[in-house]
Amino acid sequence: MYYCEMKKEELSALYSELCAKFEEIKSKGLKLDMSRGKPGADQLCLTDGLLTAVSAESGVKAANGLDCRNYGVLDGIPEAKQIFADILGVPTENVIVGGSSSLNLMYDEISRAMLFGVAGGEKPWGAQGKIKFLCPVPGYDRHFAICELMGIEMINVPMTENGPDMDVVERYVESDGSIKGIWCVPKYANPDGCVYSDETVRRFAALKPKAKDFRIFWDNAYVVHDLYGYKPLANLFELAKEYGNENLPIMFTSTSKISHAGSGISAMAASSANIAKTKKSMGIQTIGFDKINQLRHARYFGNAENVIKHMEKHADILRPKFEAVLTAFEKELKPIGVATWSKPKGGYFISLNVVKGCAKRVYELAKEAGVTLTPAGAPYPYGIDPEDENLRIAPSFPPVSELSDAVAVLCLCVKMAAAEKYLA
Amino acid sequence: MYYCEMKKEELSALYSELCAKFEEIKSKGLKLDMSRGKPGADQLCLTDGLLTAVSAESGVKAANGLDCRNYGVLDGIPEAKQIFADILGVPTENVIVGGSSSLNLMYDEISRAMLFGVAGGEKPWGAQGKIKFLCPVPGYDRHFAICELMGIEMINVPMTENGPDMDVVERYVESDGSIKGIWCVPKYANPDGCVYSDETVRRFAALKPKAKDFRIFWDNAYVVHDLYGYKPLANLFELAKEYGNENLPIMFTSTSKISHAGSGISAMAASSANIAKTKKSMGIQTIGFDKINQLRHARYFGNAENVIKHMEKHADILRPKFEAVLTAFEKELKPIGVATWSKPKGGYFISLNVVKGCAKRVYELAKEAGVTLTPAGAPYPYGIDPEDENLRIAPSFPPVSELSDAVAVLCLCVKMAAAEKYLA
Repeated sequence: MYYCEMKKEELSALYSELCAKFEEIKSKGLKLDMSRGKPGADQLCLTDGLLTAVSAESGVKAANGLDCRNYGVLDGIPEAKQIFADILGVPTENVIVGGSSSLNLMYDEISRAMLFGVAGGEKPWGAQGKIKFLCPVPGYDRHFAICELMGIEMINVPMTENGPDMDVVERYVESDGSIKGIWCVPKYANPDGCVYSDETVRRFAALKPKAKDFRIFWDNAYVVHDLYGYKPLANLFELAKEYGNENLPIMFTSTSKISHAGSGISAMAASSANIAKTKKSMGIQTIGFDKINQLRHARYFGNAENVIKHMEKHADILRPKFEAVLTAFEKELKPIGVATWSKPKGGYFISLNVVKGCAKRVYELAKEAGVTLTPAGAPYPYGIDPEDENLRIAPSFPPVSELSDAVAVLCLCVKMAAAEKYLA
Repeated sequence: MYYCEMKKEELSALYSELCAKFEEIKSKGLKLDMSRGKPGADQLCLTDGLLTAVSAESGVKAANGLDCRNYGVLDGIPEAKQIFADILGVPTENVIVGGSSSLNLMYDEISRAMLFGVAGGEKPWGAQGKIKFLCPVPGYDRHFAICELMGIEMINVPMTENGPDMDVVERYVESDGSIKGIWCVPKYANPDGCVYSDETVRRFAALKPKAKDFRIFWDNAYVVHDLYGYKPLANLFELAKEYGNENLPIMFTSTSKISHAGSGISAMAASSANIAKTKKSMGIQTIGFDKINQLRHARYFGNAENVIKHMEKHADILRPKFEAVLTAFEKELKPIGVATWSKPKGGYFISLNVVKGCAKRVYELAKEAGVTLTPAGAPYPYGIDPEDENLRIAPSFPPVSELSDAVAVLCLCVKMAAAEKYLA
């Protein structure tokens, strides 16, 4: 029976039971963590061969003869560019291979736009007064943090099951010249796992922005991170060209959740005009990124096809974790109607919507019981969830056994918070 | 006999001989390069053991138990911080270990100052109208390129044999609030190899800047790059504290010319207030730098003392190259009085001053004869050498045999250009 349909006395009695259980759990002194989208140690071990993929014996030269140990080459060695080009579905000349962090590439791209403007733009973003970004919500806190730091005003855009609500996106982008960008995680969106539909991607490609210097920040972080077999996304780069919009998308990805999270390689891809503009200041910023690590990855994986194959090993580890959480939600929360949640087929997160006004309370209760969740509100600009209902669940890091304990506590907390709400 | 003292007919005959020799050389179709401060392949081989210093077998954890493969830790693993702290003579908590490029750390620090200001500053540099940097000349072209890109006006400051002319520095910094920084390479300065004297370092520490947000960009790129035994520099970090100026210096270094030029690790060091301010936005820019590569370096070198010892191997390779160039200059150029040059005891460059108004001509002649030099003017802001006299000579990359050929061509070109000048 749904909590919301229960009689007060009935729910009150139930709440007492939940509280007793909660006290019992608290006394166990648990220390569990479902807060971080980090790969587990077993996933990291999958690519330990990478560590020794380049040695004096195996050689330090790229296929074109370049000594990867020395200075030079701003945009990456050809074989690393090729892998990312194939993964993202773009020509190699439109790729820049970066260092270990695609977030860093994104930050730098925004920082450059603030200081120097974008290709074809008239003024730096930073010299145009108030500027704005659209932020599909719930979304990735680190994207929003960049905007907040830069003083870029953020506007929430609701997510649908096909991606951001494109009616809203079009209305804003096509009518307001102060809107300079939108953050997108088009495949297995952080945190709801949504995959943008072909129609959504096409509508992005066909946008007619009011601002000449509007850009789509296409963070394809989970491009090959399928849990149930690889399914490619519609190709925004090609579609944008069809509409004469080749300068709109700036695409990002990395091997952070393919090889080693902290020591992978990253990439960005964009039109030739965008890449040329970026390289102009990037070439002042650095002589080049770590080419030995690029060579390691290129040697270890060989090509994009092998990367996709390799991701099946990650999926085999992650799938049971996602399923453990989803099964518990199904069993514990569904019958009583106190939450809804996404059922992602890939990526790193599950989005849990509890009873409105209860997310912060669930976070606090879980913390008290020894389970760390991502703070409520984190997936929203300025950390403000207008409905205080969303929690980002990260099932990847803990082993399955710990995860089961953690999710049991979580479900209890969701129930308690709901009961408190209905009893109030 | 000095060219400038020769009779016209005498010099003219000599010039004809030089031209004949030049044509002979041209016909050889040489392809030699003295333009880049790159380590030679033999130097890179010195640390190839680094490539396999971290493996599944040897373990992927830092001394504190941290799994270096995963996300986390913004400012570097403790053992890498320790090495840089000891090299720079600062406490570990004042160090941030970065990625493969210290230039990138410098650019980012300036970019942050432009966008967000510095610790204790009232406004971002970018919101203060015209701002300026002092640039000791000749200096490092990549420093100047950052200022030029950012629209920071550069003011030349002459170098003396003890470092920048501190009378000039003090006069500017203490009287003009629009001066926000100065670029320094305090040990074996690029390109003249000058080592800042204790007195110079102390005067830097004692500056009383008009601007509250003035900073000294202390690029200690050649901190352990001695050719004739390690000699420490006066410690600006400690001295600045004495004068209550702990926020003035921001220090940089890297292993680019210690391990592998393109895949080393970098570091910055500064006061706790500066580091806190930097981390605030750096933590938005990235989750962290490549900790596996930090672990590789920490394992391979162990400590700062071993780094200094290791540099003797580099010195053994570089010393004959520097000496080959200097000996040729001494033999070919000194007797005829057409050039002066620095005699560095470390670093990567020799600064050659030819007859005033001749540097560009020498560059062109050398190019015609198949020897690539760093473009004349490069070591000056905006690429403008006011006297057109300076050439930056980079002896590190070519093998000694090639270097001897290249320097012979260079000397010939210096003579030709001088003769042309005196004959004109």
